[in-house]
Amino acid sequence: MDTLSFQKRFQELRGNKAFELFVIAVILFSALVVGAKTYDLPPFMMSSLVWLDHFITVIFLVEIIIRFLGEERKRDFFKSGWNIFDTVIVAASLVPVDESDMAFIGRLLRIFRVLRMVSIIPELRVLLNSLLKALPQLGYVMLLMFIIFYIYAAIGATLFAHINPELWGDISISMLTLFRVMTFEDWTDVMYETMAVYSLSWIYYLSFIFLTAFAFLNMVIGIVVSVIEKENAKEAASNNTEPSMSELQAEIHSLKAMLKQALETSDVNGQRTRGES
Amino acid sequence: MDTLSFQKRFQELRGNKAFELFVIAVILFSALVVGAKTYDLPPFMMSSLVWLDHFITVIFLVEIIIRFLGEERKRDFFKSGWNIFDTVIVAASLVPVDESDMAFIGRLLRIFRVLRMVSIIPELRVLLNSLLKALPQLGYVMLLMFIIFYIYAAIGATLFAHINPELWGDISISMLTLFRVMTFEDWTDVMYETMAVYSLSWIYYLSFIFLTAFAFLNMVIGIVVSVIEKENAKEAASNNTEPSMSELQAEIHSLKAMLKQALETSDVNGQRTRGES
Amino acid sequence: MDTLSFQKRFQELRGNKAFELFVIAVILFSALVVGAKTYDLPPFMMSSLVWLDHFITVIFLVEIIIRFLGEERKRDFFKSGWNIFDTVIVAASLVPVDESDMAFIGRLLRIFRVLRMVSIIPELRVLLNSLLKALPQLGYVMLLMFIIFYIYAAIGATLFAHINPELWGDISISMLTLFRVMTFEDWTDVMYETMAVYSLSWIYYLSFIFLTAFAFLNMVIGIVVSVIEKENAKEAASNNTEPSMSELQAEIHSLKAMLKQALETSDVNGQRTRGES
Amino acid sequence: MDTLSFQKRFQELRGNKAFELFVIAVILFSALVVGAKTYDLPPFMMSSLVWLDHFITVIFLVEIIIRFLGEERKRDFFKSGWNIFDTVIVAASLVPVDESDMAFIGRLLRIFRVLRMVSIIPELRVLLNSLLKALPQLGYVMLLMFIIFYIYAAIGATLFAHINPELWGDISISMLTLFRVMTFEDWTDVMYETMAVYSLSWIYYLSFIFLTAFAFLNMVIGIVVSVIEKENAKEAASNNTEPSMSELQAEIHSLKAMLKQALETSDVNGQRTRGES
Repeated sequence: MDTLSFQKRFQELRGNKAFELFVIAVILFSALVVGAKTYDLPPFMMSSLVWLDHFITVIFLVEIIIRFLGEERKRDFFKSGWNIFDTVIVAASLVPVDESDMAFIGRLLRIFRVLRMVSIIPELRVLLNSLLKALPQLGYVMLLMFIIFYIYAAIGATLFAHINPELWGDISISMLTLFRVMTFEDWTDVMYETMAVYSLSWIYYLSFIFLTAFAFLNMVIGIVVSVIEKENAKEAASNNTEPSMSELQAEIHSLKAMLKQALETSDVNGQRTRGES
Repeated sequence: MDTLSFQKRFQELRGNKAFELFVIAVILFSALVVGAKTYDLPPFMMSSLVWLDHFITVIFLVEIIIRFLGEERKRDFFKSGWNIFDTVIVAASLVPVDESDMAFIGRLLRIFRVLRMVSIIPELRVLLNSLLKALPQLGYVMLLMFIIFYIYAAIGATLFAHINPELWGDISISMLTLFRVMTFEDWTDVMYETMAVYSLSWIYYLSFIFLTAFAFLNMVIGIVVSVIEKENAKEAASNNTEPSMSELQAEIHSLKAMLKQALETSDVNGQRTRGES
Repeated sequence: MDTLSFQKRFQELRGNKAFELFVIAVILFSALVVGAKTYDLPPFMMSSLVWLDHFITVIFLVEIIIRFLGEERKRDFFKSGWNIFDTVIVAASLVPVDESDMAFIGRLLRIFRVLRMVSIIPELRVLLNSLLKALPQLGYVMLLMFIIFYIYAAIGATLFAHINPELWGDISISMLTLFRVMTFEDWTDVMYETMAVYSLSWIYYLSFIFLTAFAFLNMVIGIVVSVIEKENAKEAASNNTEPSMSELQAEIHSLKAMLKQALETSDVNGQRTRGES
Repeated sequence: MDTLSFQKRFQELRGNKAFELFVIAVILFSALVVGAKTYDLPPFMMSSLVWLDHFITVIFLVEIIIRFLGEERKRDFFKSGWNIFDTVIVAASLVPVDESDMAFIGRLLRIFRVLRMVSIIPELRVLLNSLLKALPQLGYVMLLMFIIFYIYAAIGATLFAHINPELWGDISISMLTLFRVMTFEDWTDVMYETMAVYSLSWIYYLSFIFLTAFAFLNMVIGIVVSVIEKENAKEAASNNTEPSMSELQAEIHSLKAMLKQALETSDVNGQRTRGES
C-alpha cells in the first residue's frame, strides 16, 4: 500500500504542468550551455559551464528516476522508444570522461541532449513520427536511385579515374561526386574537366541529371498523392454518418414493395366490394 | 453638428477614387525618388530630390491627417495595423535628421515608404495577410528545423572549429554555414576542407542535407494539402443549397409513413365497405 | 464566281495534309540552317547557306500568300495573332539588309522563324496559350515580389554601394544582384563581402531569401490549386447528365403530393362508399 | 511427353523462391565485384576478381538457359523486354575481349549487369514502367522546351560567339551553356562576361530563366494533376457498386408510375363501387 501511494505521488508529479515546464526550461538551458561552449570564453566561465553541465546531468537523472518510479508497470517504461532514448542519453552523460579522446564523445553526447526537446514536446514527437512513417513508402524509389547512382559511379570510376582521381578515384568517391552533380554544385567544372578528354561525356552528366531529377520528382509526387489520398480517406470516414446511395436505394425498394402490396390490396378490396355488392 | 459635417466631408474625400489614385501616384513617385537617389547624380539634381522628398513627406502627412479626420470614431483608426504602419512611417519621416549617422536611418525610413504600396492596394493587402496566416501553421516544422540546425551547428563547431574558424568558429557562424550548405552554395568546398581532416565527415553533410530537404519537403506538402482542403471546404460550403443525403432519406421515410397510413386507411375502408355492404 | 473558286482552291490547298507537312519540313530545315550558320564553315558552304536562306524566305512568302488567298474573308486573316506573327516574320525577312549592323538584326529575324514551329503545330499552340493564360493570375504575386525586390535593392544600394559598386552601385544593379542571391548563385560570396563591413548584414540576405522563397512557394501552390480546381470544375460539368440532389428531392416531393392526393381520394371514396351504401 | 515434363521441371525451378533469392544474391555479388574493381587492388586480388567475373557470367548464362527452357512457348520468352535485356547483357559478356579498346566496353557491359537488379525485383520493374509511362505525356512540353533552348542557343551563338567561343562557339555548345544557366550553375559568371560587351544582355538570361522555369513548373504541375486525376478515376471505378444518381431517379420514376396506376385503379374502383351500389 505504501509503495503504491509512493508510485502514485510520482505519477502525479510527472503529470504536473509546472514539473514539465521546469524540465523544458532545463533542456533549453542545457542547449544554451552547449551553444555557449562553442565560443572562446575566459577560463573561469568555462569551468562554471562545466559545473552547470554536471548540475544539468543531475537534474536529468532525477527527472528520469521520477518518471521511472511514476510508471505503474516498470516494464512499460522501456516500451516507449523516447524513454529509452532519454535514459541512454542521461546514462551516457554519467560516465566519467577524462581523456581527450573520450571527452570529445562526451561533448557530442551533451549536444544530443538538445534532442530531448523533441521527446518532451508532444507536437514535435508527432511531427517526427509522421516523418519517420513517410520513409518506408519511399523505400523502393530510394533503392532505384541507389542503383542509378551505383551504375553511374561505376561507369564514372572506370572512365574518368585517370582524369581526376580525387573526384573519380573509386566507386565511393564517384558516388559522392555524383551527389554533388545532382545538387548542381559546380557540376560544370566536373563536366568540363572530363569533356577535355572525352568530348561526348556531357551525355553522361545530362542523362544522370535527367534520370535523378525525374526519379526525385516522381518521389515527391508520390508522397503528395498519398498524403492527399489519406486526407480524403479521413474525410470520407468522417462522413460515414450520412446514408450511402445504396441505403437510399434500399429504402426506395421497400417503398415500392409497400406500394405494390397497397395496389394489390386495393385491387382485391375493389374486386371484393364489387363481388360483394 | 459642424464638426460632424466636417468629418463627413473628409470621409467622402477619403473614399474618393481620384484621391486614392493621387495617393498611389505619390507613393509610386516616392519609390522612383528612392531609386533615383541610389544613382550618382549631379549636385543640383540631388538637392532637388531632397526637396521632392520633403514635398512627398508633406503630402503623406496631409493624407494621413485627412484619413484620421475622416474616421468616424477616432479610436478605430489605430485598430488597423496598416494605419499604425502608415502613421509610424510618416511620423518618423518628420523627425529632422542632420547628423550622418541618423541621416542613414532617415534614408532607410524613406525606402520603407514604398511598402505603403502594399497598404494602399487592397489585393496586395489580402495577399500579404494570407502569407502571414500561413506562417503559424509552419511553426512546429520551423522549430524542428531550428533544432536540427542547432544540433548540427553544435557538432560542427565542436569538430571543425580548428579546421576553419571562419566557417565553424562558434555555433552562430556554424548555423550560417549550415544554411549555406542547405542552399547547396559551394557546399562541396566546405565538405572537402573538413574531409581532408576527418575523412568520414561527408556523413555529417549528407545526413544534414537529407534531413533538411526531407523536413522542407514535408513542410511544402503540408501547406499544399491544407490549402487544397480549405478550398474543398469552401466548395462544400457553397454547395450547401443542395439537399444532403440524410435529408433525402428523411423525405423517403415520411413518404413511407404516408404510404403505410394510406394502406391502413384503404384496408379499413375496404373492410368497412365490406362490413357495411 | 471565278475569284470564289480561286479562293476555294487555295483553301483546299491550305487544309491539305501534304502541304502542312511540307511547310513543317521547311521550318525544320530553316531551323537547321540557322543552327548550321553558328558553326565555322568553309566559304562556299556559307554562301550556299545564304542561298538556302533566300530560298526558304521565298517558300515562306508563297505559303503566307496561299494562306491569305485561301481565307474566305480577308479581314479574318489578321484577327489571328499567329497569322500576324507569321506575316511580320516573313515580311521582315524580305527587307534587304546589307550593312553589318542591320545584317545582325536580319540574322535574329531568321532565328525567330524557328518559332513558326509553334504556330504550325496545334498542340504547341495550345500549350503556349495555356502558359500565357496562367500569367495574369500571377500578376499580384509578381507585383508583391517586385516591391520586395525594389525595397531590398534600395536598402542594398544605400548600405553596400561603397563596398562593391559592381554589385550594389545603383538600384538596378542591386536588383540583378538580388536575383542572383535568389537563385543561390554564389550568394555567400556576396554576403561575406558585406559582412566584413557590416557583421549583421546576414539578416538582410536571410530575410530576403525567406521572403522570396516563401512568396515563390505561395505562387506555385496557388497555380497548383487553381489548376486542380479547374479540372474538378470540368469534371463536374461533364457529370451534368446525372440528376442533382435537388432534382431527386423535387421528384420525391411530387411523389408525396401524388400520394397525398391518393390518400384523400381513397378517403373520400371510402366515405362516399360508406355514405352511398 | 518427356520434353514436356522436362520443361515443367525447369518452370518449377524458375518459380522457386530459393532460386530467385540465389539469383538476386549473385547479382548483388556481381555489383560488389563491379564496385571492387574501381579500387586500386593488389594484382592477385585483381586476377581473382577476373575469375569471379567469369564465374558470375557462367551462372547468369545457366540462369537464362533455365528460364528459357522453363518457358512453355519459346516465342513468348522474347516478347518480354526484360528477357531480351537480360539475354543481351549475358550474351555480350560471353564475347571474349582481349584488346584494350574492347576490354573497356566489356567492363561497361559488366556494370550494366547491375541493372538486372531492376529486372529481377518486381517492385522496381513496376516503378520503372510507371516512370517510362509518364514520359510520353511530357512529350510536347519537352518539344516546346527544346524549341526555347534552340532559339536562345542560336541567338547566343550569334551574339556571344566572339566573346567566349568555349561557351558560345556554336549552337550545340550554346545549348550546353544554357542548360548550365538553367541549373543556376555559375550562371552569373557567364552573364557578367557578356554584360561587359553588351550591357543589356541580362535581359537574355533573365527571360531565358523565367521561360524555362515557367515551362518546367507547368510540366511538374501537369504531372501532379494527371496523377491525381488517375487516382480519382481509380477510386470512382472502385465505387461502381454504389448505385448512381440516375439509377435512383429511375427507381423513383417507376414508383411514380406505380402510384399513378394505384390512383387510377382506386379511382375506378371507387367510381365502380359508386356506380354499382
